[in-house]
Order: sequence, then structure tokens, then C-alpha cells
Amino acid sequence: MQVTVSRKAHFNAAHRLFKKEWTDKQNEAIFGKCANPHYHGHNYELIVHVTGKIDPETGYVMDMKVLKDLIKAEVEELLDHKNLNEQVAEFFDLIPTAENIAVVIYNKLKPHLNKAHTLSVTLYETPRNFVTFSG
Amino acid sequence: MQVTVSRKAHFNAAHRLFKKEWTDKQNEAIFGKCANPHYHGHNYELIVHVTGKIDPETGYVMDMKVLKDLIKAEVEELLDHKNLNEQVAEFFDLIPTAENIAVVIYNKLKPHLNKAHTLSVTLYETPRNFVTFSG
Amino acid sequence: MQVTVSRKAHFNAAHRLFKKEWTDKQNEAIFGKCANPHYHGHNYELIVHVTGKIDPETGYVMDMKVLKDLIKAEVEELLDHKNLNEQVAEFFDLIPTAENIAVVIYNKLKPHLNKAHTLSVTLYETPRNFVTFSG
Amino acid sequence: MQVTVSRKAHFNAAHRLFKKEWTDKQNEAIFGKCANPHYHGHNYELIVHVTGKIDPETGYVMDMKVLKDLIKAEVEELLDHKNLNEQVAEFFDLIPTAENIAVVIYNKLKPHLNKAHTLSVTLYETPRNFVTFSG
Amino acid sequence: MQVTVSRKAHFNAAHRLFKKEWTDKQNEAIFGKCANPHYHGHNYELIVHVTGKIDPETGYVMDMKVLKDLIKAEVEELLDHKNLNEQVAEFFDLIPTAENIAVVIYNKLKPHLNKAHTLSVTLYETPRNFVTFSG
Amino acid sequence: MQVTVSRKAHFNAAHRLFKKEWTDKQNEAIFGKCANPHYHGHNYELIVHVTGKIDPETGYVMDMKVLKDLIKAEVEELLDHKNLNEQVAEFFDLIPTAENIAVVIYNKLKPHLNKAHTLSVTLYETPRNFVTFSG
Repeated sequence: MQVTVSRKAHFNAAHRLFKKEWTDKQNEAIFGKCANPHYHGHNYELIVHVTGKIDPETGYVMDMKVLKDLIKAEVEELLDHKNLNEQVAEFFDLIPTAENIAVVIYNKLKPHLNKAHTLSVTLYETPRNFVTFSG
Repeated sequence: MQVTVSRKAHFNAAHRLFKKEWTDKQNEAIFGKCANPHYHGHNYELIVHVTGKIDPETGYVMDMKVLKDLIKAEVEELLDHKNLNEQVAEFFDLIPTAENIAVVIYNKLKPHLNKAHTLSVTLYETPRNFVTFSG
Repeated sequence: MQVTVSRKAHFNAAHRLFKKEWTDKQNEAIFGKCANPHYHGHNYELIVHVTGKIDPETGYVMDMKVLKDLIKAEVEELLDHKNLNEQVAEFFDLIPTAENIAVVIYNKLKPHLNKAHTLSVTLYETPRNFVTFSG
Repeated sequence: MQVTVSRKAHFNAAHRLFKKEWTDKQNEAIFGKCANPHYHGHNYELIVHVTGKIDPETGYVMDMKVLKDLIKAEVEELLDHKNLNEQVAEFFDLIPTAENIAVVIYNKLKPHLNKAHTLSVTLYETPRNFVTFSG
Repeated sequence: MQVTVSRKAHFNAAHRLFKKEWTDKQNEAIFGKCANPHYHGHNYELIVHVTGKIDPETGYVMDMKVLKDLIKAEVEELLDHKNLNEQVAEFFDLIPTAENIAVVIYNKLKPHLNKAHTLSVTLYETPRNFVTFSG
Repeated sequence: MQVTVSRKAHFNAAHRLFKKEWTDKQNEAIFGKCANPHYHGHNYELIVHVTGKIDPETGYVMDMKVLKDLIKAEVEELLDHKNLNEQVAEFFDLIPTAENIAVVIYNKLKPHLNKAHTLSVTLYETPRNFVTFSG
């Protein structure tokens, strides 16, 4: 009896989309105003989904308080109120698109979860744009 | 051509998380303030998803009015404005975690659906915590 | 490494649910007030999900600006501020239920996407009723 | 000690914006695609605010169940699943803009309220456009 | 130049509406299922509004971190995961309607604010029912 | 008969809170992680409220399409995908707190409105923090 438990979290960050190997013109052609060299930013809304069996002792798949604290320690500490391009090592050589940020978050959380559990990460860059990565 | 139709509903209830076999200390260690013996409560938001083929006569997978009435009869009547631990027989021996409530709701609805349809239940305990059970 | 990117859009339209071959009484028995011959309408909220691999050059599965423009050209131009029954050819012989509208939207978008990508369409008819079609 | 109590409700309707005395061209110049002769529609979200003193007997300004039933009887019965221009007498000679609909709703509700109470009506035509009328 | 700054917070609590001096029948006649002797509960959403001049040194009316911590200390500590009738002294002789809870919250916060600031409290008992108290 | 019409808009921007005249330590003491020299950012949600009489010819206080275009020209062009501190002249000597941004937006819009209309601006910096300025 598999159940998915989901927890919402939030962080604010600055970023820009650009590829070092490209000229400014190429970057602007591909990334438009997201390439602005002075950065822009977002309120990222994160939903972390963990799927597993209900523990018959507790009625929990996973204690949501533990999941909340894990997201805080592994994701919010890393990304909140940061400039992703300049202050987060994972993005020194990786363009911080929503897709790539979701993969980075997945990789930060996965090692800390019960191995019998599966993980999925949904990341809203804006209320109208979001991505989902499930490993 | 499978389509999923989804209907949102709502109920308010009181509950506490605790295991009769454990001491108060054990309950508080595992469930924290959710173990408060005087209860606390939630506005539960429920989303019921039914998947099946579109009926070419009506253009419906299932009449949403019928689904709305079914949720009202089987779920809202049972749980709305109730104390789950004390007034709902399903939880006399089952801890009313969001996971277990979702399973109970699934089991109340499933027998009333067309056998060719599959069911999934999403339950928000708070705007930031939710669970999904798909049988 | 498959990621799903999702984009929300919006359109307003009038419709009624009725079957030409049925009498008014039959239509009202099946479709209730949705059969009102003078029409009623909705603010439809649309979420388009595209799943594929992250392009290592851009960090994108698909440029969301391109997806936004595609939804505008193929869906909003067709359906926004229209009477679905009277002004949209796809519904001259198809009842414009949420299920059928989702299928029509899927079929309008699919040919314009990369063939390696999969598509799913979620359509909210009201904040409490929605449908999902994934082909 | 004045408190405002607010209740949300919902109705779906079709309408068009046009002035009988104007030509089609004039109507389209002023109202754009909202003048479409075949109508379009909206999910209207309504918030009704009533301000008054707390009754020390009940702790209520006004029983929200009574307010809910009043909105149902006076507003939803009149407007839900209707074509405002063709089926609602109040709009036979009044353009059903959000502004005018809010005034009509105010006038339907006001006579049924306690005279010591003040009323305000907020009406969302879309999630991005809304109006407020307070008499 | 007056600006209003607003901060959202959240707490979950159990309550029932009843008047000790009344019989069970009277309570049920007035409060319906909200009088259930076994309690029910809500996810209360709170919005605290503080109005004052912008401090030209900081650009703040009030540091939102200070307001957040004040709400936590004065409101969440008092009400979160509590049974309002049985565990919160303010409601031992006051019916915990949304109106009365808003007044209690106002009175807890007001003494801690700058005297030049005005305060307003909005409390959602459910997503469809809310109240506002401004002193 | 005064009615308020409101329009929601959206922009993304990077900023930091700091005062040039202060040391880094002072800035961090007052502004915390919002003082991060590498910037962070937000999805700002803006609601513009215009109050005036209903024009009996059109049923409008103000054409929402005109208001939408005005917000785009005066606010979104200025602030969207920008670094407020480095690229927006209004903030070269003004700390871009939500309060100050709301005042700047008010001052950009006011001269373009009908003089008989009053203006109010609500700005969400995050879903939990927002400010309102009414001149």
C-alpha cells in the first residue's frame, strides 16, 4: 500500500541564464531577458514528494517534521537568499534553469531518504512555470 | 482514450495522533504537539481523481455532479465537523494520520465507482502537507 | 533524465452541454443547468505538461517562451472569448465537456512538439472541477 | 467594536459587453473581443463583506450559514449558469460589466441585511480582474 | 506617507461553538454542527496588517522579521495545536467564533507595536469564511 | 457611486537591502540575509486598484485593458527581469524595500490616471509578505 506524502517549501534566489562559452548576443538570443548580466530573481515554490509504505506503528510514510527539517537543511540553507550563479557551487558550471535546479535539489535530498522510498521534486519558478523531476 | 476527472471537496475535523499502547511520553516523542490530548483540527481539502474512458454519448468520463454527491454522502457525512478519534469508527483502532485518512476515504468511495474506473485520492491536511493514495 | 516542464494559461469561453439527437428534456435530465440553451461560461485554466530530456546546451527541456507562444497560437486564438458550440468547428459535432476540450487541446498542440517529447493536458473548468488527458 | 465577516461564493455565467444604441463597429472598438455576439463566459468569484457589532450572546456579527443561504437565494439562483444579457432582467438595459454586476448584487443583498450592518461586494471576473462596490 | 505592511501566518486548532448557559438543544439550534461536543477544527490563516510611516533610514514601516517573530510568540504559541475551549484561558468564558478569535489576537499583538502604528487582523476560518477586526 | 477596479500583474526582479552609508556589519544587523551583496530576488505580484464612478455609457470605471497596458508600459517595462539596485534609477538612492517599491509604482502610475480617480497599490514580495500604499 504505497502512499505519497508531499511537503511544500519556499526559497528566494537571484540567477541569470547564460552559457560562458557563448557571446552575449548568443545568450540573449537563447535566453532573452533571463540573460540580463545584472541578474533577476524568483520566489521558488518547492514541493517534495516521497512515496513508500505506511508504517503500521505510526501511520506515517515518513514524519513530515523530519521531511520539513531535511528540506530546510539541504535545500533552503543552500539556496535561500542566494545568487545561484555566484554563490552555489552546483551552478558554477551548470545553467540554473528550473530543470537543473530541480535535479540539484533531487540529488541533495535523495541520499538522506529511506532507500525503500522514491522521490519526486516539483519546482515552481513562477506561478505559471514549473517543472517536475522524479529521478 | 483514458481521461482523469478530478473533483475538490472540503471538510473540517478534530483529531489527535497517539497510540493507545504507548505512554504519553512515547506519544509526544513521536507525534509532538499533534499528540495533544485535547485535540487540534484541520480544514482538510480533498481531491478525488477518477480515470476512465470518455463515454461517447455524453462526453463525460463520469458526471461530476454524481461524483460530488458521492463524496458528500460517503466522505463529508462521515468526517465533516467530527472528532475523528472519538466519533468515526474507522479510526477507533487506526491513527488518523493524513495517510490513513486517505486510505479510509479511498475505501469508502471505491465500491461505488464503475469497476472499469481507477481511483486516486489526494488529501491536504494543511496547505503545505498533503498525501496521495491510489490503491 | 526525464523532466516535465509545465506552463499555465487561461481562456474564457461560453458553452452549453447538449446532444442534438436528444430532446430538451433528455438533455436537461443528463446535463442539468449545463444544458441551458442561452449558454453559460467559464474561466478555463489550462496546464500543459511536456516531458523530455534536458538539453545539456541550454538546460531546458523546452523553452517555456516557445511553449507559451504555442499555447497562445494554437489554443487561446481558437478558444478565448468564443462560444465553443457555435464558433469552434471542433465542437460542431462534439459536446464541449471538459474531457472533450482537453482532448481537442491535446490534438492541437501535439503535432507542434518535438517527437521525443510526451504531452499531458490539465484543464480546470472551475476551481473545483478539472480533467487530465495524456494521449 | 465593529468586525467585518466575509463569505466567498461562486457562479458561472455567459455574457457579452455591448450597447444596443451603438453599431457593431463601435461596440468592438470599445469592448474588443468582449463584444463577441455569440457570448463568452466566466467563473465569477464573489466575496460578500458584512460589517457590524459582535452579538455578545453568540459571538457572531451574523451567522455565516444565514449569509451563505442568502447569497444562494438572492445571487446564485439569479445568475448561476445563466446568460446575463438574455436571461437576467437586471441586465436587459444595463451592460453586464463586472462593475454593474457588483452593483446589482449589492442591491439584491442589502434589503435582507440588518439595517445596522454595512455591506461591501467584491467580484472577480477573472483571477486577475476584480471590482469592489460598497454602496 | 502611510503604508500598510501585511504578514501571513498559520495555526491549527480544535474548537466548538456553544454557550454554557444554554441547553444542548439551544446550542445546536444556533450553532448547528459547530456545537459538536467532541469538537472539530480548522487550519486558521491569519493576516496581520500594520500601518505607519516608512522609516527613511531603513525603508521599512516595520521589520517583517520582527512582525513574524511577534506573531509566533504572541499568537502561534498561544493557539497552535490547541483546543481553544479547553486550553486557552481567553476562551474559557468567550465563544471561540472567528470574530472573537480575531479580537483576542488583536489584543495580544497591539501592546507590542509602536504606538504610532495602527493594527488590523484578518482571520480565515476556512478558505470561504473570514473576518477582519481593526480595533 | 464609487467602484474600485483592480488588476493583478507580475514581475520578477533581483535586489538587495543595504544602505551605502552603513558598514557591511550594520547592514547585516538590520537587513539580515536580505543584505547579501550578491543579491537575491522575488516574483513580485502587483495589484493596482483604481476607484471612481461608473461611466454610464460603458459600464466601466476604467477599461481594464487600458489599465493592463498602462501597468505593462510604466511598471513591467521598468522592473521586470531587472536588478533594482543597479538598473533602476529610482533605487540608486532609495532602498528597494517592498514599501519603497510600492511608492515608486504609485508615482509612476498616478500621472496617467484620470484626475477624478484614486489609486492604491498592493505589492506582494512573497506569498506571505505584502504592502499597500494609497498615496
